[in-house]
Amino acid sequence: MIKRIGHIGIIVRDIEKALTVYQGALGLHLAKIQERPDLAATIAFLPTGDSEIELVQPVTSDSDVAKFLEERGEGIHHICLEVDDIERALSDLRERGLQVIDEIPRVGPEGERFAFIHPKSAHGVLLELYELPTCQSELDDHSP
Amino acid sequence: MIKRIGHIGIIVRDIEKALTVYQGALGLHLAKIQERPDLAATIAFLPTGDSEIELVQPVTSDSDVAKFLEERGEGIHHICLEVDDIERALSDLRERGLQVIDEIPRVGPEGERFAFIHPKSAHGVLLELYELPTCQSELDDHSP
Repeated sequence: MIKRIGHIGIIVRDIEKALTVYQGALGLHLAKIQERPDLAATIAFLPTGDSEIELVQPVTSDSDVAKFLEERGEGIHHICLEVDDIERALSDLRERGLQVIDEIPRVGPEGERFAFIHPKSAHGVLLELYELPTCQSELDDHSP
Repeated sequence: MIKRIGHIGIIVRDIEKALTVYQGALGLHLAKIQERPDLAATIAFLPTGDSEIELVQPVTSDSDVAKFLEERGEGIHHICLEVDDIERALSDLRERGLQVIDEIPRVGPEGERFAFIHPKSAHGVLLELYELPTCQSELDDHSP
């Protein structure tokens, strides 16, 4: 069911300052910085092995990520695990009694489908599951 | 400098209960459970892609991990990044003004050498760096 750790999301106050540590001092490669209005955040992506570190800067004051920053300060926000089939994964987890935050997967800017599991169901960890689009599904999307 | 995310450490109250989620529901493979008296913890290792999820259960009431559990509850405790050369990494980070918790790397049961970086220096994230023993260094250790 789980293929790998897709990324670790770290909430930061200021991406440029955080990059002086994660890119400058630790030497991680900055692949891109993306505006994500759907998450009220700007995100810096730093590939690390077969995973990624994401620095997430809230851009409004009333979003979930802004509230996390306000209440808990900077730090690790969530772990994202890549799955093959997100519908099946969510259905399996619901059957086992885990509290799924997103009943229907949300869709990200690159076609990834993602959903969050409540920390109450995962021993204090906010878990994201995502399924990445495959070449085949992209072809299917463009077929007549 | 950084090769990959070595593991994510999650503090849990009871490894057996946490395994019903991480092994049972999410389907991760349990590679081993290890007693770590040096960390006052029992640790379950669940390989995930080229990384690992570690479930860390405190076994005394006065350790750092026990205090974390007492004050903050279950949840993500640290991220460990694998480096090639831990002495050079620590020296580089100190030069850049980061606060290193372990001036000299500690040695784990499998010869791994590890050190922690203070969350104040890494935007709220407790970072561990570790260097794994290589075949060559094991040979060197046993040479006359």
